[in-house]
Formats: sequence, C-alpha cells, structure tokens
Amino acid sequence: MAEPTKPSILVTIGKGTGVEHESETAAKLFQMAFPDREVVTEPSPGVGYAITWHPPLGLLAQCENLQAIFSLGAGVDHVLRDPDLPDVPLVRFVDPTLTSRMVEWVVWQVFNHQRRAAQYAQLQHEGTWKELTSPPAEDLAIGIMGFGKLGQAAAKALLPFGFKINAWSRSGRTMDGVTAYDAEGLDAFLAATNIAVSLLPATAETKGIINTDLIGKLKKRGPLGGPVVLNAGRGDSQVSADIDAALRDGRLGGASLDVFETEPLPADNPLWTAPNCIITPHAAAVTDPRALAMYIRRQVDAVEAGKELENVVDRGRGY
Amino acid sequence: MAEPTKPSILVTIGKGTGVEHESETAAKLFQMAFPDREVVTEPSPGVGYAITWHPPLGLLAQCENLQAIFSLGAGVDHVLRDPDLPDVPLVRFVDPTLTSRMVEWVVWQVFNHQRRAAQYAQLQHEGTWKELTSPPAEDLAIGIMGFGKLGQAAAKALLPFGFKINAWSRSGRTMDGVTAYDAEGLDAFLAATNIAVSLLPATAETKGIINTDLIGKLKKRGPLGGPVVLNAGRGDSQVSADIDAALRDGRLGGASLDVFETEPLPADNPLWTAPNCIITPHAAAVTDPRALAMYIRRQVDAVEAGKELENVVDRGRGY
Repeated sequence: MAEPTKPSILVTIGKGTGVEHESETAAKLFQMAFPDREVVTEPSPGVGYAITWHPPLGLLAQCENLQAIFSLGAGVDHVLRDPDLPDVPLVRFVDPTLTSRMVEWVVWQVFNHQRRAAQYAQLQHEGTWKELTSPPAEDLAIGIMGFGKLGQAAAKALLPFGFKINAWSRSGRTMDGVTAYDAEGLDAFLAATNIAVSLLPATAETKGIINTDLIGKLKKRGPLGGPVVLNAGRGDSQVSADIDAALRDGRLGGASLDVFETEPLPADNPLWTAPNCIITPHAAAVTDPRALAMYIRRQVDAVEAGKELENVVDRGRGY
Repeated sequence: MAEPTKPSILVTIGKGTGVEHESETAAKLFQMAFPDREVVTEPSPGVGYAITWHPPLGLLAQCENLQAIFSLGAGVDHVLRDPDLPDVPLVRFVDPTLTSRMVEWVVWQVFNHQRRAAQYAQLQHEGTWKELTSPPAEDLAIGIMGFGKLGQAAAKALLPFGFKINAWSRSGRTMDGVTAYDAEGLDAFLAATNIAVSLLPATAETKGIINTDLIGKLKKRGPLGGPVVLNAGRGDSQVSADIDAALRDGRLGGASLDVFETEPLPADNPLWTAPNCIITPHAAAVTDPRALAMYIRRQVDAVEAGKELENVVDRGRGY
C-alpha cells in the first residue's frame, strides 16, 4: 500500500537580500531537514508549508493548500507587506542563539579596537613588523546603549576582561559592576564613554540618535586616540553620513557597524573605506542554518501531530 | 659621611628585537624607577643587576659583581642561550597584566576565525555585502596546548562563550568544563581540536612541535573548513614554513601567529601573505612598561633587604 504523499515545502526568498539563487541554496538545506518531502521553489497545489524571507508579492496566495508560513527571521514586516498573504498561521523564528551571537560580535569588535585590528592589518599588508600600543582593559570605558537582554548579556561578557562598563537605558536599569545612567543621564553617560555600543531597538526615540551631536559628546581624549562607535542594533539608530564624516576628520577614532539605514550598504557608500571602520553585513547575530532548519522541522512535525505551533505572529500587533 | 654607592643597573637589549636604540630607550625608563642608582648600557664592575632581553653573548660575563639578572619577559630561553651566562639568580618577569593581555589576544583571535575576520575584511575591501556562515561557539573545540597559568586563564575566559575546551599538558592538568589530555594523549587531543592554541614555553620538547605532522593530526572536517592554529607562546614551538605550506594547500583553514623563529619576521617571509593568516608582531602580551619597572625595582629592594627573589628560573627545567 503506497504511503500518502506528504505536503511539500515551498522555499521562497525574494530579491533584495543580496544573494543570488538564494531560494535554491536554502531549498537544498531544507531538503536535508525534510528527507521525506518534496522541497520546491515554485508554488503548487502540493505545497503545505512555506519558508520565506521577503516573499515575492502574491506568490504565497498561489498555494491553495498552504497550512503555515515560516519567516526565516525574527521579524515579519517583510512578510506582512504582501496584501494577498494567505490567512494561515505565520510563525516567526525565535533563535535561542541570537543573544550569544550578538554578544560574540560586541566582544569581538571591542577587541578589534582595543587591540588595533585595522592598524595591524595595514602593517601586515605592508609586511611591516611594528608593535603598537594597546590600552589595558581597565583604561577603556565601554558604554552600552540599550540595557535589555542583549545589553546585559554584553556587559556580563565584557566585565571579566576588566573593562569599565557604563549602561544607558530609559529606566536606568543596572547590574553589579556597571555604572548605570537613565534617560536624563545621556550626556553624562557619553562623557564617560570611550567605546559606545548601540544595541537599541528601532523606535521613534532612537531614530538617528548616533549623529554628529552624540559623537561630539563622547569622551574626547582617550587611550584609542578618539572615541569609537559600535552599532549592532538597528540601522535607523545611526546617521551613517555623520559617522563617516567624524571618522574622516578624527572626531571618531573608529567604528564597527553591522547595520545601516539602507541594506545592503550601497557599493558607493563612503563608509566602506572610512578610516578604522569595520563593516559586517547585518551578520552580528548570524542564524545557524541547522538550528533554523530543525526549528521549522519540529514545528511541522508538531502541527501534523495535531499540536500547536509556537511563536505564531499576532498580525495586528506585528510580532 | 658619604653614602656607599649603590650597585648600578645594566640595561642590555640585543639586536633582533626590531627596535633601534632599544637599550638606551629602556635605560631611560628604568632610570625613572631607580632615581638613586646609575643605569648604564655597557658592562662595568659597578653593575650589580642586569635587565635584559636577548643579551649579546658573553656580555653579562663582563660584569664581575653581577648579583641577579632580570628577563624583560616571561621567557628566558633567549637569556639561557648565552654559554657564558654568570651563575647568579635569573628572574623572569611575571607581569600581573601579562596573563590578562595574553587572554585578550587568544579570545580576540578565536573570534577572528569563528567570525571570519579575514574574509569579511576582504569583502569590505571589495565593497561587497555578503553574509558568511559562522559556526556557533559550541561547534568549535579549542585545544589549549600548555595548561599552566596562561592556558587556564584562557580556558576560563573562553568557557562562558560556549566553546568546547580541550587542554593538553605534560601532567594532564584539568579544570571544570575542560577535557584534559596528558603527554601521551597528544594525538587524541589533536583529533578532537578545531582551533589549536599554543601557549607552550620554549623547551627541548616543544621545539618545532607545530609542524606538518601535528597539523595533519588536527580534526580535519570542521565548521571552519579546516583546522586553525594560534601561537602566542614561543616562535621556536612552530615550523613557520610548515604552517605556510598547510595554509596554502588547505590543510589549515587559518592561523594567528604572534611569535616566529626569527623576529622581526623578515619582510620577504611568505607568511605575511598566506591565506587567512593573521600576524601580530610579538604583541600578544603587551607589557605595561610601568608595571615592568616597578616589578624589578621591588625585587632589587627585596634582595638588598636580604629577602628572597621571586620567580627565579630553574635553569635545568628552563622556566
């Protein structure tokens, strides 16, 4: 007796994510997680589940037997913008490793500036053997902007190395070993900070907060020559042109940026070549593809066993 | 009544350390720490103490009243190679900040390889926005070679990020959360290691240990494409040409090297341009010059007060 065919999986990743043929590549990954199902990249009546990131508008509506949609990321704004989105459960990806990956990026970038990564890379490029000074951790004050789950985890990871940690949040939330500042304490926080780390969410209050004005309030003469800005939060929190100008005229001693107002960062943006500026392509919290595949596999198994889906989006609220 | 003249201090830093007039520069530093003594750069009967790094062979034997020799670093192999070295206590510099600086370097370089620093730098150079895979910490086994004070501190710093830690030492010394291997366990240790970190001292047993044979025993297929070698211990522990060849034909996926058999690393050495090879100029454990001067001052005061010197080297053992 032939086994009934299981609903197939549609993988569709829209343009604008910076990688060509991404649907095909991702389909191969998901085929490994679903060895007993067809994994396709075009809509069809056999499709039971869609795995997507920026779906082409109207495409999912062509799958008449769709039972659930899985977003490849924690956000779903790029899925909800489809006016013809089928009314089936929309599940967002809640990555348990997101916090740890973000913390890795922050600590990595702090070391890159403390230990002079860009300057040593340049010396290596020239074949020049030259020791540079590097301030001890206790001479550097790291100021964390946004002190929720991510900010607290970053502080906890940095403290054992001996860095001074300042934290700025609306409520002035604190932690052992951390100097906390509340909403009104922003200027004092900045004046005490050598390396500012933004882990801020995108809100009306944080839009464009990392600008010429903020840069001018950071601690001026420090052991790195000038203050440093790291942003792994949201691109909309920064004014990239202000950061670029400050790097070029020395008001900033360095920057590490993972997010931008426009992504991908256009090839002609001057930040690509700004002095002592380290750019990563919105990769601070890299998602482990296997973790992602297993997360979706577990959910599909659950729904077919008659169980509830986890992390279903409230479409009214948007998350 | 005239105070008896205090024994003077000889500062001698041999050639090959990459800085011209280094003895003179260092002598000025030590003069500040010893305002009541003569600090010289040539041997004489008045010299009571020598502060040195790579002393010119036979030079210290010319100081007939020498009472102690201070190495500017934790290692003393470069002092012991002098066959005419006077038989007085040889003190190595145990910098309280040495351990923390070395740990910074190790964690920094682990992140550089885990988070694809060299590849992202290349993409940035091209102005290309492209996310690369990066394995989660728990998929990477860091194997620490040499599990004394430095190795243990490195393990302690890496563990909270979730890396698997293996340790290899003569005695098989262990720590909570670490898989320990003793002298006989080297092959098993290597087979379980993605990123080997050498913090080994320079001894007859460790000479050239990081060679083609050892590289071939490291875990082959890992999440970084190939195994990675970090050396912040001693240049003599590695065969640079073997590392270079393995990087070029893919047996190694990356390397971070702070030390070399010949320093400064010659400008025409191929390692400068080997793929995914990060070079720092013997700068892992940047010594704070003030801490160094105070350490030697305290020891000289102690010995003149009839007290014991600290950190005297066992010449037979070599450290």
